[in-house]
Amino acid sequence: MFFFFFLRFYLFIHERHTHKACTGTLLSQPCRAVYIFAKRNGIPFELRPVELRKGQHLSDAFAQVNPLKKVPALRDGDFTLTYRVSLGVRCVAILLYLNRKYKVPDHWYPQDLQACARVDEYLTGLVPNPLLCLPTCQVMFPVFLGEPVSPEMLAATLAELDATLQLLEDKFLQNKAFLTGPHISLADLIAITELMHPVGAGCQVFEGRPKLAAWRQRVEAAVGKDLFQEAHEVILKAKDSPPADPIIKQKLMPRVLAMIQ
Amino acid sequence: MFFFFFLRFYLFIHERHTHKACTGTLLSQPCRAVYIFAKRNGIPFELRPVELRKGQHLSDAFAQVNPLKKVPALRDGDFTLTYRVSLGVRCVAILLYLNRKYKVPDHWYPQDLQACARVDEYLTGLVPNPLLCLPTCQVMFPVFLGEPVSPEMLAATLAELDATLQLLEDKFLQNKAFLTGPHISLADLIAITELMHPVGAGCQVFEGRPKLAAWRQRVEAAVGKDLFQEAHEVILKAKDSPPADPIIKQKLMPRVLAMIQ
Repeated sequence: MFFFFFLRFYLFIHERHTHKACTGTLLSQPCRAVYIFAKRNGIPFELRPVELRKGQHLSDAFAQVNPLKKVPALRDGDFTLTYRVSLGVRCVAILLYLNRKYKVPDHWYPQDLQACARVDEYLTGLVPNPLLCLPTCQVMFPVFLGEPVSPEMLAATLAELDATLQLLEDKFLQNKAFLTGPHISLADLIAITELMHPVGAGCQVFEGRPKLAAWRQRVEAAVGKDLFQEAHEVILKAKDSPPADPIIKQKLMPRVLAMIQ
Repeated sequence: MFFFFFLRFYLFIHERHTHKACTGTLLSQPCRAVYIFAKRNGIPFELRPVELRKGQHLSDAFAQVNPLKKVPALRDGDFTLTYRVSLGVRCVAILLYLNRKYKVPDHWYPQDLQACARVDEYLTGLVPNPLLCLPTCQVMFPVFLGEPVSPEMLAATLAELDATLQLLEDKFLQNKAFLTGPHISLADLIAITELMHPVGAGCQVFEGRPKLAAWRQRVEAAVGKDLFQEAHEVILKAKDSPPADPIIKQKLMPRVLAMIQ
C-alpha cells in the first residue's frame, strides 16, 4: 500500500500483495490508475509503503485517516473517500474526485454532454473480472502460493478473458482512437491498467488483436511512455515473484479463493 | 418496452417480460428509475409499449433509433446512449445524461465536490445482483415458467439478499436521511427501484429493518407517493402473473438461467 501526501490531501493506494522486492511499486490496478492520473496531471505526492500483511491498515493510526480501514482510500482534510463494497472498479470515485478538484485537461472526463455520457457508459457498465482472475490463476496460485490450478479453471478464465477483449474491441473501441472518443479518457486509463494485469501474468493479451495493440500504443503515448513503464514495471515482473512463506500463504489463501469464485 | 418522446428526445426503456396485463407498466428496474426521474423532474414524454417478445427491438425501424438494438436506450437527435454490456446498473449513464441536460434540482447529483463523490461511490461501486436474482427464483421460475426452484438455490439467494441489505444499511445509509447524504440522490433512486424488485416477489425486504423502512418512507415522500405507487404498481403485482405459454417459456428460459448463474 502507498501513501500520497499533498498539503492536506492524502491518497492511500492499495498494494495488496507487496513483498520486499516490490516495495514502492504498483501491483494493483486501482493503484496504477490513480498513480498515473495524479502524476500525469502534476498533482505532487509522496509515496510511502504501508504493509497490509503487517496489519498496518488495521492500526489506530490508519483508522484516523480512514475509519473504514480500507484501501485504496483518499483523505482530503476531514473527507475520506474509499470503496465501501468489494464490487465495481475501486478507483472510479477517487479518479472523478481528483478530476473535479484539480484543473486537469478536459479530455479525461469531458464537459461535453455526449462525450461525457460515453465515458459514463464505460465507467458504470464494465466490470471485467476476467482481467483480474487470470493473474490469480496463472501467478498467485501456482507461483506465489505454490498451489496447482486445474486446467479447466484456467481454460474457463482464458475464455472469459477472450470474451472481454472482444467486447472491448467491438462495443467500445470500434474504429475510434480511444475507447470513448478521439481523446484519452478515464475509461482508457482504467482499461489499460486492467489489461496490463493479465499481461503481467504472462498472457499475450494484445497478440492477434492489432486494433487493441494500436490502441495500447496510443494510450502509452498519451500517458507518456516513461510514466507508463514506471507504473507497470512491477506488475510485469509479478510472475517472477518468490513463493510466499507458509504464514502469509495461510492468510492470503481465503482472499485469493474469494477472488476467483 | 416503452417509448418516451420529447421534441427530438426519445427514451426507450426496457420492459423485459411484459405480458398483456402489464402493457404500459414498468416491470424492469432501469425502466422505473428513469421513469420516476423524468416524471419527477418535469420532462414530458409519451409512453408507448414496444414488445421485445415480438422482436420489435430487432426491427429495422427500431435500428434507426438504436443501431445496437438494445434497451433501455436514449436517443437524442443523432446521439444514442444505451448499455453496451450486460453488467452494471443499466440506467446510470442515461440518468447522468438527463441530469446534465435538464435543469433538475442539484440534490440528484450535487455540484458540491464531496457530496458528488458520495453519489459516485454508490453509482460505481454497488451492483446488487441478489436483488434481481430473488424475483427470478421466487416468481419467474415457479410462477411464470412453472419450473421448481431448489430449496438450496432459494436459501442461497435469500442469504445474499440479506447480506446486500445489511451492506446498504451499514456502509451507505448509516445514520443519514438518504444513502449519500441529507437529500435524495440518484443513488437512492437506483437503490429503491432495485429493492422494490424483491418486494414484488413477495419478500418482506423492509420487515425487521426499521432504518431501511424509514429510509423508504423518506424516498417515497421525496419522489412523491403517487408517482412512486404508479411506477411500482405492476412489479407489486408480478407474483400474480399468469403462467407463460410454452413458446414464450422456451424463449425465456435460457435468459432466466443466465440471470441466476
